[in-house]
Amino acid sequence: MKSDTQPATSNALWIYDTTLRDGAQREGLSLSLEDKLRIAQQLDRLGIPFIEGGWPGANPKDVQFFWKLQEEPLTQAEVVAFCSTRRPGKVAAEDPLLQDVLAAGTRWITLFGKSWDLHVIEGLKTSLDENLAMIQDTIAFFRSQDRRVIYDAEHWFDGYKQNPNYALKTLEAAIAGGAEWLVLCDTNGGTLPHEVQAIVRSVMQHFDLRITDTAAPRTPHSAPHTPRLGIHTHNDSGTAVANALAAVMEGARMVQGTINGYGERCGNADLCSLIPNLQLKLGYDCVESTQLAQLTESSRLISEVVNLAPDDHAPFVGMSAFAHKGGIHVSAVERNPLTYEHIQPQLVGNTRRIVISDQAGLSNVLAKARSFGIHLDKQNPACRQILQHLKTLENEGYQFEAAEASFELLMREALGQRQQFFTIQDFHVYCNMLKGSDRQDGQAVATIKVTVNGQDILEAAEGNGPVSALDAALRKALVTAYPGIANFYLTDYKVRILDGKSGTAAKTRVLIESSNGHQRWTTVGVSCNIIEASYQAVVEGLEYGLLLQNQAKTALVSS
Amino acid sequence: MKSDTQPATSNALWIYDTTLRDGAQREGLSLSLEDKLRIAQQLDRLGIPFIEGGWPGANPKDVQFFWKLQEEPLTQAEVVAFCSTRRPGKVAAEDPLLQDVLAAGTRWITLFGKSWDLHVIEGLKTSLDENLAMIQDTIAFFRSQDRRVIYDAEHWFDGYKQNPNYALKTLEAAIAGGAEWLVLCDTNGGTLPHEVQAIVRSVMQHFDLRITDTAAPRTPHSAPHTPRLGIHTHNDSGTAVANALAAVMEGARMVQGTINGYGERCGNADLCSLIPNLQLKLGYDCVESTQLAQLTESSRLISEVVNLAPDDHAPFVGMSAFAHKGGIHVSAVERNPLTYEHIQPQLVGNTRRIVISDQAGLSNVLAKARSFGIHLDKQNPACRQILQHLKTLENEGYQFEAAEASFELLMREALGQRQQFFTIQDFHVYCNMLKGSDRQDGQAVATIKVTVNGQDILEAAEGNGPVSALDAALRKALVTAYPGIANFYLTDYKVRILDGKSGTAAKTRVLIESSNGHQRWTTVGVSCNIIEASYQAVVEGLEYGLLLQNQAKTALVSS
Repeated sequence: MKSDTQPATSNALWIYDTTLRDGAQREGLSLSLEDKLRIAQQLDRLGIPFIEGGWPGANPKDVQFFWKLQEEPLTQAEVVAFCSTRRPGKVAAEDPLLQDVLAAGTRWITLFGKSWDLHVIEGLKTSLDENLAMIQDTIAFFRSQDRRVIYDAEHWFDGYKQNPNYALKTLEAAIAGGAEWLVLCDTNGGTLPHEVQAIVRSVMQHFDLRITDTAAPRTPHSAPHTPRLGIHTHNDSGTAVANALAAVMEGARMVQGTINGYGERCGNADLCSLIPNLQLKLGYDCVESTQLAQLTESSRLISEVVNLAPDDHAPFVGMSAFAHKGGIHVSAVERNPLTYEHIQPQLVGNTRRIVISDQAGLSNVLAKARSFGIHLDKQNPACRQILQHLKTLENEGYQFEAAEASFELLMREALGQRQQFFTIQDFHVYCNMLKGSDRQDGQAVATIKVTVNGQDILEAAEGNGPVSALDAALRKALVTAYPGIANFYLTDYKVRILDGKSGTAAKTRVLIESSNGHQRWTTVGVSCNIIEASYQAVVEGLEYGLLLQNQAKTALVSS
Repeated sequence: MKSDTQPATSNALWIYDTTLRDGAQREGLSLSLEDKLRIAQQLDRLGIPFIEGGWPGANPKDVQFFWKLQEEPLTQAEVVAFCSTRRPGKVAAEDPLLQDVLAAGTRWITLFGKSWDLHVIEGLKTSLDENLAMIQDTIAFFRSQDRRVIYDAEHWFDGYKQNPNYALKTLEAAIAGGAEWLVLCDTNGGTLPHEVQAIVRSVMQHFDLRITDTAAPRTPHSAPHTPRLGIHTHNDSGTAVANALAAVMEGARMVQGTINGYGERCGNADLCSLIPNLQLKLGYDCVESTQLAQLTESSRLISEVVNLAPDDHAPFVGMSAFAHKGGIHVSAVERNPLTYEHIQPQLVGNTRRIVISDQAGLSNVLAKARSFGIHLDKQNPACRQILQHLKTLENEGYQFEAAEASFELLMREALGQRQQFFTIQDFHVYCNMLKGSDRQDGQAVATIKVTVNGQDILEAAEGNGPVSALDAALRKALVTAYPGIANFYLTDYKVRILDGKSGTAAKTRVLIESSNGHQRWTTVGVSCNIIEASYQAVVEGLEYGLLLQNQAKTALVSS
């Protein structure tokens, strides 16, 4: 990692990821041991120098995580153990909680302590002096055990606003103990960028800190020294990213955050926004540029691991971050992207997307065909045919912005390149609800008749609703001919009523997202009958999965 | 509105909402005319002084929207029409597009023009001088027609960075034409807060602008004058909110944004973060404090109208924004909330959520009961019962924020005041789709057995989908006993998949809005079976309509 293995450049900046600890505080997010390991490995590949793994001792899962990483160490990242100061009135060396932290076997430990006098008195119920001793003693103890220490100053900004003298004393105690980094934390997330700027500036001045990123790396044994500042922000005011940037511009050289901004309440500062802002716009060196190009993939992979839908509108890494609508606009973007895009999407591993919508022109269709790997000439009459068909369908309520798989099938059909994997002959669905029955949600039975390879197959299945019964019957009918279907699963199902004014007779648009474990694709169906609309999207979802499977086989054969 | 009806205070700041125009550019968001009207009415209640309604002429829906608001004007907000400058080489007074804009009949018009020389040459394909004339002429033309003008300087920050002299000339042209506001737009969203700060500062200096919010309001006829600055930011760098704050701190006095940050790519600046930051933290006057307390409700209502899941982690208005986890922390929060919360949640209409306590909602239940005209004492054990039931249902995915009719029925049930108009015994629904049949959408038949006044009634009906068949059968069964049902109709039907990850077996929430021509009410149903969920909402919709009918009769008798 940078701080050890290479002389820092004047633009070096250390990213510190706390997805596994602070990120996991997000409501609805829980991580298994395997999840934590997969995330750590991805962060390591991404070139993140510090990965906070958890609080050893507080949680058996965290203890196992650190053991596992001792067996299979990461490539470049330092895994950091997180913990609190010793308890009031105790001796650090005798505190069993600190022994658990040492047992995790990390070179670096992040210790958090109280900066705000009120929290010392009301929360810890101890004296202001004892809190200072707790900070200094605990750090000194870890230093005596050959560990390097990052000090997280909890509630720093609120504490400093209330009692700056005391807040500064807590940092002095951390320095005296031997901390190498002093990280100013906006724990409640209420601070605005101009306040961060002013307070970081005054801390830099108080300690007569210069931007010391040219300093030679220090060994764990070196005597007390001039530490560097870090920043840790939360998004309760919607300014976590800007707050971190403000601190960096005043001299902070460590930035703590989480992937996708996961975290308690409104989340932590989003590293997927911070890293490209710092590196591409402000010129700091955070990761290698080949690693930066893995940012989008890392964001999406980690969202899969934590089982949360990716935010399509996330800066830099979202599906829509470089999406363009409209006809004339699209040709202008392709001619001179930087007049419409703040960065080149490929720098962060994202791609420009030409959105297919009712404003679509011919250039959109051509651009889209290229992105599907379909050769389509402007002169080909199929072009206009596709555009016409598209407009007709969009008028009926279809929407291909999100349903690119359905659009590709439509395009292949117009070009005579759509493979017929199966043909549905008919289906029937039956639902009932009997008052007082134990099946509160009622039940549904579906039958379906499908022709596969010239053979008619009739299958039936039950489900807790009509669509799931239909989906199950269809899979049952197809799985013998196409065993790959067993690996497809639905990852999202969205229903939108178009023209809600028509009440229950209104048109329904269904979007279904499917996955084969590696790829995700979305299909669309529209009908006044919600079951028919769902059926269309389910059928195209399976068809597109089979198409991808065939393409993968072809690629394998030809390589 | 502030700029007309009251002398502005030194802290006055004008919020300009563009959810209906720029917000609607978000991929996957589309608004019906009714949606647009509902959103405008909510923004009006929220005290937003400027509401951008759309581009009249560009879209038939937008034309109707402005007509509709001429018939039923808003209470306090100015609805603003949006448009481009006249076309190159044409005369403003003869441009039919500008006539369409005038026909919308708004007092204010927002006109956007090009600031970046490159866009003038490559995009408009005209000369730099002609672009200046287009800006000045178009504004002067609107002024000659008694309209007041806001000038949106598109691509301002990028344009200024490339060619500051030309960018400033475009603003000079807008001033010469008579624009009252110059709004600096970060159209590509790539600018960082320190750049916004520096550029806004230099614009203020260039025009020798002072923070002129104490100026007396001007009439549309007044001569060219010193305009004020506004800011319009996008979130491509994750700093849209901070960018707007930076501009305000340098003197901008209009802030453009959208509810929930909806918008193209990564969205616009989120007014749900900006308004509380500006008002509660920086001391600007944006809306009344009673209106600010409706912010959370507005955010959620608008997310329901546009049928997008609310972001639980949104600053200020998200479900998790003031969530505290159990343990010691909780009592500390309750003892001294401001040590753990950056603002008081009730100031924005949100609530603290403490996982272990069901205390939080009691006052809500009481307030809600009052709003239904139900007398409910705090000591009444039914209170806790209602709260408990509510929490259980919300846990299952019910949501009563938009479905107040269902909530009132629930409350009446707990109080023994729910009248039984009818009892459903059972229902059956059958759908089929036969390939090659002329009924492309398939067909559905429903049968239902209902007990009304001690008599069992069995009816069947067809529909173009299962829910409309069921709705028709139920109405057929009830209309003899309750002829009033013939006047009820469904005005909206919305479906949301909860936990889309479970695919077609996921839970479905259905919201149905009904009307009797005078009143509108919304009911909710939740189930894994979409037909069952729809059925619940349809049944409660009819029941509530009958309840309203009875109340109207009672009121008539007693008056």
